[in-house]
Amino acid sequence: GMEGAPPAASPAGLSVYVAVSQLLGLTLLVTTGAWLGRYRGGVAWHSSLQFNVHPLCMVLGMVFLQGDALLVYRVFRHEAKSSTKALHALLHGLALVIALVGIVAVFESHQTKGIPNMYSLHSWCGMAAFLLYLLQWLLGCGFFLFPGASFSLRSRYKPQHVFFGITLFLLSIATCLLGITEMLLFNIRDSYSHFVPEGIVANTLGVLLVAFGLVLGYVLTRDDWKRPPLAEELALSMDFKTLTEGESPGSGSQ
Amino acid sequence: GMEGAPPAASPAGLSVYVAVSQLLGLTLLVTTGAWLGRYRGGVAWHSSLQFNVHPLCMVLGMVFLQGDALLVYRVFRHEAKSSTKALHALLHGLALVIALVGIVAVFESHQTKGIPNMYSLHSWCGMAAFLLYLLQWLLGCGFFLFPGASFSLRSRYKPQHVFFGITLFLLSIATCLLGITEMLLFNIRDSYSHFVPEGIVANTLGVLLVAFGLVLGYVLTRDDWKRPPLAEELALSMDFKTLTEGESPGSGSQ
Repeated sequence: GMEGAPPAASPAGLSVYVAVSQLLGLTLLVTTGAWLGRYRGGVAWHSSLQFNVHPLCMVLGMVFLQGDALLVYRVFRHEAKSSTKALHALLHGLALVIALVGIVAVFESHQTKGIPNMYSLHSWCGMAAFLLYLLQWLLGCGFFLFPGASFSLRSRYKPQHVFFGITLFLLSIATCLLGITEMLLFNIRDSYSHFVPEGIVANTLGVLLVAFGLVLGYVLTRDDWKRPPLAEELALSMDFKTLTEGESPGSGSQ
Repeated sequence: GMEGAPPAASPAGLSVYVAVSQLLGLTLLVTTGAWLGRYRGGVAWHSSLQFNVHPLCMVLGMVFLQGDALLVYRVFRHEAKSSTKALHALLHGLALVIALVGIVAVFESHQTKGIPNMYSLHSWCGMAAFLLYLLQWLLGCGFFLFPGASFSLRSRYKPQHVFFGITLFLLSIATCLLGITEMLLFNIRDSYSHFVPEGIVANTLGVLLVAFGLVLGYVLTRDDWKRPPLAEELALSMDFKTLTEGESPGSGSQ
């Protein structure tokens, strides 16, 4: 509630939504594993199963870890900003490494099988999402992690960082949906329309991906769930405000 | 700019972004028409071309018109709220009717060709998007258009209406991307990987859809581009605030 809750408590609804998001995230990973394990022969690097590393890594990196990295300012809302920021950068970094492994897997698998790269809408969206995600991470480190950038520069870049962060997360989910559709139409083109179990499982994975994006989108855009600035951060920003007239650090909370 | 602009002027950046969105929207429609006309034999109701009515109607209704309906509070920011609201409802209503025609087209086309319905991830996402969009429209009319709902009820429902409105718009775009991928893999499965013109055109349509969603998402989520309440609306809401202590009509602008 908004009526006079003590500033150290998390909003009650937030915890429920975060719990649901983590349940969805884990179900997402389990469903991906079940699909690949049960219907696609499993996952292995040096074999004809190398392709299957791709969907697993992309769901883990570009969806689950990227999503959880976006949540840290909501979940660890009363920790020092520097530690939360480090965790945010670390999770995104881990997501990028895992995504890179997934991309190498599909390129190597295509080379082995003589399939061209980068012709499909899935590959266009996915490569754009990955490269812009890497750029976003580098810009984020440059602006917020290294001490060079001024307070003014940071508060000017922050809304862009937040908007493009959510956008790239949603584009990643859309790209996964495209990947699911491609895999199904390449592998079970004729039986898909007869509601075979693999089709149902893969469609369900798609629905779970949409649900994960929906819940995270809700948590991230609710104004009253944003991380409140700590007392000392507020003092610092007030101090700065008196020094530079015209600046508006009103959106000082992450 | 934010520094003392007179309240009757539109923010300069907003006009540029709206213009770009409309350019993208028209390019979207032209590209869809070009794809269907040049590579898929054109569009006709009583023929084997009935299927092609589907993508055309969905892009026009669920993307272009739905998107433009979301923009009206930004574009007509100094009109009376009642007229803007009516236009908002009208555009969404038109979008729903056109989408319904597109859905009938694909169901009839499937029936003619003996293809089952509702087995694909595209159809699951699309049907969910359409039904929830219809529900959202009915709820919107009930809460905001008919005079029964109280100010308190309206301000409590409004954030949900806005969030789900943007969400359904983005889900509609994702569903179009899935539809593009399905059409390409059903029609040019073997030549798609050789970068044939139809594949490039359809991929480009996908990129344009993402760009349209991106630009609209940016316009709709920028706080300082939200419709400012008119003087008389503000007076009314202040009046109401003094009557009902504890209510927070702080988000009184659309």
